[in-house]
Amino acid sequence: MRPSSSPSDGLLSGLSGSPDVDRELDDPALLRALLDAEAALARAGAAVGVLPAAAADAIVDRCRAERYDPAALGRAADAAGNPVVPLVRELTAAAPEPARPWVHLGATSQDIMDTALSLVAVRALGPVLRHLDAAVDAAARLAATHRDDVLVGRTLGQQAAPTTFGLTAAGWLTGLAQARDRLRQAADGQPAQLGGAVGTLAALGPAGPEIAARFAAQLGLPASPLPWHTQRQPRLDLAAALGGLLTATGKVALDVGLLARTEVGEVAEGGTGRGGSSAMPHKRNPVDSILIGAAARRGPGLVATLFAAAVQEHERAAGGWHAEWEPLRDLLHLAGGAAGRCARLLTGLQVRPERMRANLDATGGRVLAEAVAARLASAVGRGVAHDLVARAADAPSMRAALLADPEIRAHLSEAEVDEALDPYRWLGSAGVFVDRALAAVRGAGA
Amino acid sequence: MRPSSSPSDGLLSGLSGSPDVDRELDDPALLRALLDAEAALARAGAAVGVLPAAAADAIVDRCRAERYDPAALGRAADAAGNPVVPLVRELTAAAPEPARPWVHLGATSQDIMDTALSLVAVRALGPVLRHLDAAVDAAARLAATHRDDVLVGRTLGQQAAPTTFGLTAAGWLTGLAQARDRLRQAADGQPAQLGGAVGTLAALGPAGPEIAARFAAQLGLPASPLPWHTQRQPRLDLAAALGGLLTATGKVALDVGLLARTEVGEVAEGGTGRGGSSAMPHKRNPVDSILIGAAARRGPGLVATLFAAAVQEHERAAGGWHAEWEPLRDLLHLAGGAAGRCARLLTGLQVRPERMRANLDATGGRVLAEAVAARLASAVGRGVAHDLVARAADAPSMRAALLADPEIRAHLSEAEVDEALDPYRWLGSAGVFVDRALAAVRGAGA
Amino acid sequence: MRPSSSPSDGLLSGLSGSPDVDRELDDPALLRALLDAEAALARAGAAVGVLPAAAADAIVDRCRAERYDPAALGRAADAAGNPVVPLVRELTAAAPEPARPWVHLGATSQDIMDTALSLVAVRALGPVLRHLDAAVDAAARLAATHRDDVLVGRTLGQQAAPTTFGLTAAGWLTGLAQARDRLRQAADGQPAQLGGAVGTLAALGPAGPEIAARFAAQLGLPASPLPWHTQRQPRLDLAAALGGLLTATGKVALDVGLLARTEVGEVAEGGTGRGGSSAMPHKRNPVDSILIGAAARRGPGLVATLFAAAVQEHERAAGGWHAEWEPLRDLLHLAGGAAGRCARLLTGLQVRPERMRANLDATGGRVLAEAVAARLASAVGRGVAHDLVARAADAPSMRAALLADPEIRAHLSEAEVDEALDPYRWLGSAGVFVDRALAAVRGAGA
Amino acid sequence: MRPSSSPSDGLLSGLSGSPDVDRELDDPALLRALLDAEAALARAGAAVGVLPAAAADAIVDRCRAERYDPAALGRAADAAGNPVVPLVRELTAAAPEPARPWVHLGATSQDIMDTALSLVAVRALGPVLRHLDAAVDAAARLAATHRDDVLVGRTLGQQAAPTTFGLTAAGWLTGLAQARDRLRQAADGQPAQLGGAVGTLAALGPAGPEIAARFAAQLGLPASPLPWHTQRQPRLDLAAALGGLLTATGKVALDVGLLARTEVGEVAEGGTGRGGSSAMPHKRNPVDSILIGAAARRGPGLVATLFAAAVQEHERAAGGWHAEWEPLRDLLHLAGGAAGRCARLLTGLQVRPERMRANLDATGGRVLAEAVAARLASAVGRGVAHDLVARAADAPSMRAALLADPEIRAHLSEAEVDEALDPYRWLGSAGVFVDRALAAVRGAGA
Repeated sequence: MRPSSSPSDGLLSGLSGSPDVDRELDDPALLRALLDAEAALARAGAAVGVLPAAAADAIVDRCRAERYDPAALGRAADAAGNPVVPLVRELTAAAPEPARPWVHLGATSQDIMDTALSLVAVRALGPVLRHLDAAVDAAARLAATHRDDVLVGRTLGQQAAPTTFGLTAAGWLTGLAQARDRLRQAADGQPAQLGGAVGTLAALGPAGPEIAARFAAQLGLPASPLPWHTQRQPRLDLAAALGGLLTATGKVALDVGLLARTEVGEVAEGGTGRGGSSAMPHKRNPVDSILIGAAARRGPGLVATLFAAAVQEHERAAGGWHAEWEPLRDLLHLAGGAAGRCARLLTGLQVRPERMRANLDATGGRVLAEAVAARLASAVGRGVAHDLVARAADAPSMRAALLADPEIRAHLSEAEVDEALDPYRWLGSAGVFVDRALAAVRGAGA
Repeated sequence: MRPSSSPSDGLLSGLSGSPDVDRELDDPALLRALLDAEAALARAGAAVGVLPAAAADAIVDRCRAERYDPAALGRAADAAGNPVVPLVRELTAAAPEPARPWVHLGATSQDIMDTALSLVAVRALGPVLRHLDAAVDAAARLAATHRDDVLVGRTLGQQAAPTTFGLTAAGWLTGLAQARDRLRQAADGQPAQLGGAVGTLAALGPAGPEIAARFAAQLGLPASPLPWHTQRQPRLDLAAALGGLLTATGKVALDVGLLARTEVGEVAEGGTGRGGSSAMPHKRNPVDSILIGAAARRGPGLVATLFAAAVQEHERAAGGWHAEWEPLRDLLHLAGGAAGRCARLLTGLQVRPERMRANLDATGGRVLAEAVAARLASAVGRGVAHDLVARAADAPSMRAALLADPEIRAHLSEAEVDEALDPYRWLGSAGVFVDRALAAVRGAGA
Repeated sequence: MRPSSSPSDGLLSGLSGSPDVDRELDDPALLRALLDAEAALARAGAAVGVLPAAAADAIVDRCRAERYDPAALGRAADAAGNPVVPLVRELTAAAPEPARPWVHLGATSQDIMDTALSLVAVRALGPVLRHLDAAVDAAARLAATHRDDVLVGRTLGQQAAPTTFGLTAAGWLTGLAQARDRLRQAADGQPAQLGGAVGTLAALGPAGPEIAARFAAQLGLPASPLPWHTQRQPRLDLAAALGGLLTATGKVALDVGLLARTEVGEVAEGGTGRGGSSAMPHKRNPVDSILIGAAARRGPGLVATLFAAAVQEHERAAGGWHAEWEPLRDLLHLAGGAAGRCARLLTGLQVRPERMRANLDATGGRVLAEAVAARLASAVGRGVAHDLVARAADAPSMRAALLADPEIRAHLSEAEVDEALDPYRWLGSAGVFVDRALAAVRGAGA
Repeated sequence: MRPSSSPSDGLLSGLSGSPDVDRELDDPALLRALLDAEAALARAGAAVGVLPAAAADAIVDRCRAERYDPAALGRAADAAGNPVVPLVRELTAAAPEPARPWVHLGATSQDIMDTALSLVAVRALGPVLRHLDAAVDAAARLAATHRDDVLVGRTLGQQAAPTTFGLTAAGWLTGLAQARDRLRQAADGQPAQLGGAVGTLAALGPAGPEIAARFAAQLGLPASPLPWHTQRQPRLDLAAALGGLLTATGKVALDVGLLARTEVGEVAEGGTGRGGSSAMPHKRNPVDSILIGAAARRGPGLVATLFAAAVQEHERAAGGWHAEWEPLRDLLHLAGGAAGRCARLLTGLQVRPERMRANLDATGGRVLAEAVAARLASAVGRGVAHDLVARAADAPSMRAALLADPEIRAHLSEAEVDEALDPYRWLGSAGVFVDRALAAVRGAGA
């Protein structure tokens, strides 16, 4: 049976999340991480001899999540302000008498909570990054496959000039790869936390720093040179990286949604049986891009919350720390959904080069006005060229108007006009840029 | 058994929410609201004769939430982009054959979703407002009880001049009462939604507006003159009101946390067995004010998300609408926790007038420097008075310095100096303001 | 010469603001408001006899903004943390000797600052509301003029079913009118502030409340029953209303931008000589909708800042109050630009009903699939009807496929098929809704 | 004369900014950067031979900011939607006839705008980083000087256990140094932009990539492998780094404000003549920490705006790009003010170790309850020890109660009790952590 609190196992939450990521975020996963932290603390202490090996073994044995009821712990947490206090109480009760004094030795609740959330983040970022790898690969394939397929570039909402669909995909690729870089870095930078009540590790005596180092190593987390109870830069790095992922996937989704509009029709989401409408038999909604877009709209507010919560007072804060827990999970949850959907979207994307060409041609060459003007400019100056072409662009057929204009024809033959109106001759460095984007990602490796 | 998806029934979520409010927000509650909307649609249609009464009865009969599995609906929602599509499919399958064509008649998924979320909001605001009433009452009692108990007013982090704890509580009262006004108004302003595919109610023929009115009336929601699929002002009103509640309760919590600091000690949270520390035997953490403060830190980001999501395109939006669902629930969830904790906090607040007086006296009368200067000003001018008193305020004993200063003594006798240093004579209109705050709330009624 | 600090008088700021609104927001305007507050304080005090009439007259005389240098005051403000301290110093120096003790009597810096910002807000909202009135009028004209012009309704990014451009404009109208209601209410709810050092008005003796009432009346602002130094609901109301305006205008701009896309072309921004591109002679960018959209993207962050800043401690806060000043001006500035541009955009909007009709027809009737299915449903059941029509919708010509399908033809004649495919017969209550929107706005008055 | 549009040269803006940083952000500075970009473009083109050297020289000659009027350009920008269009027009007009066709060759407005804002950011970060260096140095000095001065650690608003002021300062140091790392990285990662109308550099022919590389090199900016018109990760990196700086300085200010409260008095802001109150002669407000705190409250909303604006469609966006300009300047402006004030605050901070010790002692040893319990735990078990000490901690004198308790005295002598109550024996690894923080910063270099 799926855990009851899985954030994806709900009426709504599956639409924003991804099951594999949510499995690392739900309450059982957090409980596991809290207990992993307690177990690592016992092991680290035993390794340097501040607690008996037998006590550590007994504690570690009790650090199995199935022994505890998250809902009951949650209810008991209300009196303490965090779930670690009741968990430590239950863990102590579960331990054999001689081990009890050694449970949670030298730690404060925030040590366990911060460490557990670092673990949860790292574990959840595993599947997030796998989805992102798939999305990067799919974007790379699109860029390579459509390297030279013309697309009308759109700027400020208007058709502007030719580009290629390959370059569009290369842009997505670059954005996704940059987001991946930041996420990997942030995943590597979520430290363990061990400082005790006020960050001095007083209760561990001189062994404190050594235990803190072993504690982190046990958990596979980086150690922090000093406690970071109220220095939250690691969480800001994570928040910004997750926000960046939502931005990069949101850009893909926004483009796909616009390119898939009925009037444009240059791409369509893949997948049969998806996006149907109950009322409108003809309709296919681009569901993945819609839901990625919804996630992207929620990123900035959550990023802001984590930045706002990071200004924390004194040795350990009243409220700032607590305000991070759920928004951090929410951001990881959204990142899972956005990355998973983006991988699916790009992998299955239906691309229609013929519609791209047709839309490019639909304005009768107007999107090559710049190309014509560029040809004219050397002869008549840029300003005159601009005005001559702008006049022709207002005519029903720009090509006809260009050919009929004696001032233009004084400098351009019909063949030259047609050359200027050929989009394939006005793609500039699109191919070079695609190649660079592909090379950059290949260089960076999976 | 509590519903598995209750947002309060988790390791963390109980710390930000309140069980009674969360029961109106969880997946079963949302499912009920979705089905209530479908049932009301059938009834409204039958009332004007667009569908047979028997079909309506049969549909209404199938609109019981226990028939459906929220988790399964949630999983099926992924292909459609919202949970209404699979719910309508299941509801149709559950209905007897002759009733099936009449299920969901004329509606679009967003109609049902928007209406259900209006219902959920109104239902969740019931217990939120009850908590808020209790908080308002408790603040009023504190203001009345401590109307004339002196407290040192603190401005810009520094002790400034005397005020009363009654006025502090009257400020809380005013803030909570204003937040309550906005919330009540917002609760009354969440309309039903019925517009069909593109907001024309085409599938209902000329009966559309009449059905929409009856639909809203069935649900006890206001009707909207026209569909508001992409006009989200009602949700902005709700978001702002909820943000206002988090602000008003956050202000109480911030003050209580500061007044309860060890060095100040003028108030303490009530409740035995709360706020204990696992590591520090002497410690009592002000848990409620901490958790209210954590909720307050999360409000602005969620309010911003709902404002950002409200810019929605065309007849029905791609993503903007979807981005509202979870943040709206999150805000209602936080409002429940903050209101509930604020009521508990204010009801049980331990007030220590003797510490208030001791802290006021701790600076040897310096906080009455303004009072002394005011007495002097009419004789020597405000500027000179200010400088004379500032000089005395720098001495170890300000009273001694005042009495020793011949320029001052030329105008003030020892008795006049002591009068000026009596905080009870420098409370201005504190009492009047307390009475006004109490009268305003009593006038507004419960 | 324009004032040097006008927020519109810059390389960038004119693109987000409106000159008439910015004139009420710039530093000279704020300085005037600060001095208006000081003058009103003197007058109010004199009216109740706490200061000599001659002193009040002298102070009022010195409260002319041209006497003071905003830049110098700004530099002097650094040592005090706000500009009121140096302004009071200069005002006192400027006053004749006998009047000096009476300058700023009983007030604290925040009293003057809060009151001045209330004044600035009300004054800036004058032209904002005038622009909004013009936008509402223009939207109403569009709704009335195009009440029955068909437009293809678009949902989730796809063409869905027919509606009218009148209904689209009626939606804009409703959104703008609702935003106007909130703004008017917020404009009426920005109170004067007078509480003195800690909100007790101690320095004014028993006359405090009376002076506070006269002070507010002098300035045409509502009086607050008690000081609101750290109860910021009025500012939240204002922030939410301004955010709502940016949302409502942002929705108009988003729609216009999408309807003006090259492939859609159903509307165009008016105005000659606007939106030209330096590089592309053929291009006309929809500049107003772009800039309104840019403003809309900035609203949520500023609203969040004002909500976050509103949680203020004790009698007067350290930082929270200060954090409001510039974001409040920024929001008013953006509101001016958005309202002004929206009025211009809607007034000059070029509407192309023929393109609307052509786009509607471009899918060969597919957007009437729901209409056809509705006709079939009574005969074959909704599910079967949906599937039959969905099959036809996949064919190159839906009409031909419908006519060729014997299952369909068993129930629908060619004439009935064509009736079902007539968009004018599938507009439902669009006209009714337009009329309601117009009536609601006319009822509300200017 | 100072430039009229300097963001610091106003009634309010100097309170949030710093003059040296603002000089790099104001309109003349932006105008210079825009012209620097145009000049670099001409030079780069001439270097590869696409334009005549003489034309390039003439253009470069006209790229001096004093030739142009920012206010006039700002007004002309309204019709174009950005200030580059009128600037190019004026620059072209200013150029000699033969050079005119070569002005702005191959570029689009966004190329110049994005590049100029990268330049402005890098230039403004110069003084920001200098302030930050000074703040880091001052924090390091405080940490070293007070390495072993006891301070009572405060957690969740309550006195908890001893730490050192050195460790508090080491925490500030770490936070500021981490923020500096991110800022330096972000400063190095703001690329030049050159893509032309749709990102293909079509108008530059095959020389496009070479010109783009030279263009960036001319300006000392990194080149981007492909245009980043709608891939905004560099701006997200910058926004997050600036937000991190506001967080790190905000944490310092929050601590200082709390430690400087009248009842605590452990530190005071330096600087004579600062923080005076007009009404209260005795008062000294901690102005720098207040204003840094105000800036910190504004960071999250602006960071959110830049993340929200970064989801940009197609080849160049309608509105998203425009929404970045002012918020980016605002964040840099706030960073300047916060860094400058933080350097001043930390450099002049008055530290009062005797007050720290007195506050630590004020609870009669209760903050050493954990230390006493730790000593007892090995004898009686952690739970029993905790309860015994908690009981003593409730007595008026904890020391007396400890000594009077036979269960405790069975295990601890009077000397052992007094040792346990000695804060210097319960500082754990505070000194080690201070040393690590200092070493880390020294390792990182200036």
